[in-house]
Amino acid sequence: MEHIDDRQIKADDRQYVLHSWTRQKDVHPKIIRKANGIFFWDEAGRKFYDMCSQLVYLNVGHHHPKLMEEFKHIGEIPLASPGFATASKAELAKKIIEVAPENMAKVFFANGGADSNDHAVKIARMFTGRYKIFSRYRSYHGATFGAGNLSGESRRFTVEPGLPGFIKFETPYLYRETVHFDSEEAAADFYLERLNNQILYEGPDTIAAIFMETIPGSNGVLIPPKGYMEGVRELCTKYGILMICDEVMAGFGRTGKMFAVEHFDIKPDIMTFAKGVTCGYSPLGGVIVSREIADYFDDHVLMTGLTYSGHTVSTQIGCATLDIYKEEHLVEHAAEMGEVLADRLEQLKRFASVGDVRCIGLFAAVELVKDKATKEPLIAYGMDYGKDKAGLMSKFVGLLMAHGFYTYSHESSVMIAPPLIITADELNEAMDLFEQALTDFEKLYLFPRQNLMAPQN
Amino acid sequence: MEHIDDRQIKADDRQYVLHSWTRQKDVHPKIIRKANGIFFWDEAGRKFYDMCSQLVYLNVGHHHPKLMEEFKHIGEIPLASPGFATASKAELAKKIIEVAPENMAKVFFANGGADSNDHAVKIARMFTGRYKIFSRYRSYHGATFGAGNLSGESRRFTVEPGLPGFIKFETPYLYRETVHFDSEEAAADFYLERLNNQILYEGPDTIAAIFMETIPGSNGVLIPPKGYMEGVRELCTKYGILMICDEVMAGFGRTGKMFAVEHFDIKPDIMTFAKGVTCGYSPLGGVIVSREIADYFDDHVLMTGLTYSGHTVSTQIGCATLDIYKEEHLVEHAAEMGEVLADRLEQLKRFASVGDVRCIGLFAAVELVKDKATKEPLIAYGMDYGKDKAGLMSKFVGLLMAHGFYTYSHESSVMIAPPLIITADELNEAMDLFEQALTDFEKLYLFPRQNLMAPQN
Repeated sequence: MEHIDDRQIKADDRQYVLHSWTRQKDVHPKIIRKANGIFFWDEAGRKFYDMCSQLVYLNVGHHHPKLMEEFKHIGEIPLASPGFATASKAELAKKIIEVAPENMAKVFFANGGADSNDHAVKIARMFTGRYKIFSRYRSYHGATFGAGNLSGESRRFTVEPGLPGFIKFETPYLYRETVHFDSEEAAADFYLERLNNQILYEGPDTIAAIFMETIPGSNGVLIPPKGYMEGVRELCTKYGILMICDEVMAGFGRTGKMFAVEHFDIKPDIMTFAKGVTCGYSPLGGVIVSREIADYFDDHVLMTGLTYSGHTVSTQIGCATLDIYKEEHLVEHAAEMGEVLADRLEQLKRFASVGDVRCIGLFAAVELVKDKATKEPLIAYGMDYGKDKAGLMSKFVGLLMAHGFYTYSHESSVMIAPPLIITADELNEAMDLFEQALTDFEKLYLFPRQNLMAPQN
Repeated sequence: MEHIDDRQIKADDRQYVLHSWTRQKDVHPKIIRKANGIFFWDEAGRKFYDMCSQLVYLNVGHHHPKLMEEFKHIGEIPLASPGFATASKAELAKKIIEVAPENMAKVFFANGGADSNDHAVKIARMFTGRYKIFSRYRSYHGATFGAGNLSGESRRFTVEPGLPGFIKFETPYLYRETVHFDSEEAAADFYLERLNNQILYEGPDTIAAIFMETIPGSNGVLIPPKGYMEGVRELCTKYGILMICDEVMAGFGRTGKMFAVEHFDIKPDIMTFAKGVTCGYSPLGGVIVSREIADYFDDHVLMTGLTYSGHTVSTQIGCATLDIYKEEHLVEHAAEMGEVLADRLEQLKRFASVGDVRCIGLFAAVELVKDKATKEPLIAYGMDYGKDKAGLMSKFVGLLMAHGFYTYSHESSVMIAPPLIITADELNEAMDLFEQALTDFEKLYLFPRQNLMAPQN
């Protein structure tokens, strides 16, 4: 493309583009002029630490040389519609199965996380012959009608009236649980007992699947208590319900394991993926199914599909991306850097506005509160998406940006999920910026007259 | 990617990939070893005329040099999530609006046709505050839950129980209409009267949108009778219902106009697109909205979105693709070649098994029958997707392949939709192959003892 100047790009963007999840008059977009590794520079030349990997997909970082090189080979494998076999599709499916849990057998490719989740629901219904789908409050699975109905937060409301048979249950959220537990195991038992009851109330024989983000991401990196995931697996097995884990955000090394399910002693029946499989260099998502489900579709028609299932370019980029994880030991590195990040997050607890920190690998959230004792959230539930535009959370994210720390928030939690290539030094530098922004934020907006570094309670 | 031999590709495909819309044991995929323009060659070196542009997306043909060159420039524009402005996203949105009907103002980008249709439904509901969505029998809009529920054919059944408020009405299908009409206008009046009644029965104030493929594609290129589209537009305007035209297959020159709506005296409120915008070189789709709808979202939150909305690579490929339409005058060329194709299709009517031919630009279907007088379809309704695997339609498509004519069928119709770059000579050569296959087919399977070239009735 010929060069277009920044003013013209912004004018055309304003005139012709509809932006997601916002009032258009609130859109004042930056331009990324240059990007490399964990950094990008805006049109004014300001440098940012990309601490959310754009939308938690750029695991290998910006402008990875191997992927830039791979684009030069596009065309060597001819474009082919889904009915053909292609080298890149077959090879990527093989690579994915090789790193997936051992019961996984085949891959159905889609375009992104949302449609992958739609297809997974359909596959579960076809395989089980049942129609109800359990999913959780405080989850996000995407914005198509299937994925949107799975989601358990306010972004679901535009796909309502909802799909029949989509049932919600609670996500364990210990920081805000009103019941006191002596252990994580006791908490797990509490939630599992309630889930078991709800399964009985809905009729086990009508339930096709329990659909969960392995670690809910956008809703605040809600790490399940010990024993919970194993308990859900047991309930699924007991009632013949499929366990579907959405690994769109948590998969491909983000949590310090290739897939987040590896943190638990479970084998899901179906997993969905997107983001990290190509790190966003080309749109791609998909559904991984167990041997049993794969075999079922030998003799039964898989009644779903799409034009770009196994897209030649996207699967080629996917193959190169999976090689990078291996060559650069990114998963192991993410686990190590996760410990550095966890240390820094612990230190944030000295701030009066930090209610909770949650971290697994390089997947973390900092939950802010107005008052540590009452746990009153920084913004009330449901105040995202335009409603908080002049509110406290927007102000804090603005201060982070002003300090060169780029990320986004949801409800009262700030996401921290840098590219997996980040070094310990870079991580510490970024967290220094975070602390500076938080100090400013408390001073300016929360406790202007207090001595903030003193213990709060 | 390193070279993998054909046997290994097929073995890996068999072992690791789930194929769409089929029993997996029925999958015996070819490999495209080489492709150029309207041709591809399989792993045995056999040459095929790609007479369906893969899945009606390769409008510029295989391996277009300008797009191959464009991939070498990937990386010059940094990857950015939807909140940023990028040169390629802004430029492509502008290019699309420049060629869209004059009332169109902004573009929301998605990944493909299906999710674009999901987002369009959501936009219509947000804008109108109404929830019912009218769409048509004998339509296909995609396989996500929104697009699937819009669809009016058997591929919808796996997204049932369906979405509340999704209502179906009839597509004009004159070849199989039992009522006799003196003119196309009379037929249009007949269908419009019934649609008006159904709107009244459902409650006009509850209906957000009437959602239609401008020309239903997979269901047999069903060209609306004169006056019909204008009549639907009038009903929409009268009742405050949005008119949404799905141009995923028919858009971008396929029908001899840039968008199929230009064949009619209408301006839709929303259009959806995919396929031809990048010709499948990179996954991309989107929703085009009118000035009125665009303005509404200045002050109201657009409550939908996706990670790859306006994907940097896909929009860059889209910009280069739209340049090709202009530089190579592909839309005008498609209109001219459409006349050549229409002539050849007329000549097919001498065959006993050809019930109807329908053609607009390079978008055509040949509908086969067992008996011209009774119009008994070659295969009964609903026999696609595995059910007809050993049936007559599969046999005919197999014969076409054997003659080097690559395409697919749906119900009893065969799709003919070659790349828009096809020449008159190539089109005639391909249609010669079609006739040879049809001759063989009738001789082998339909009328083995008859003199087929004699008039049938």
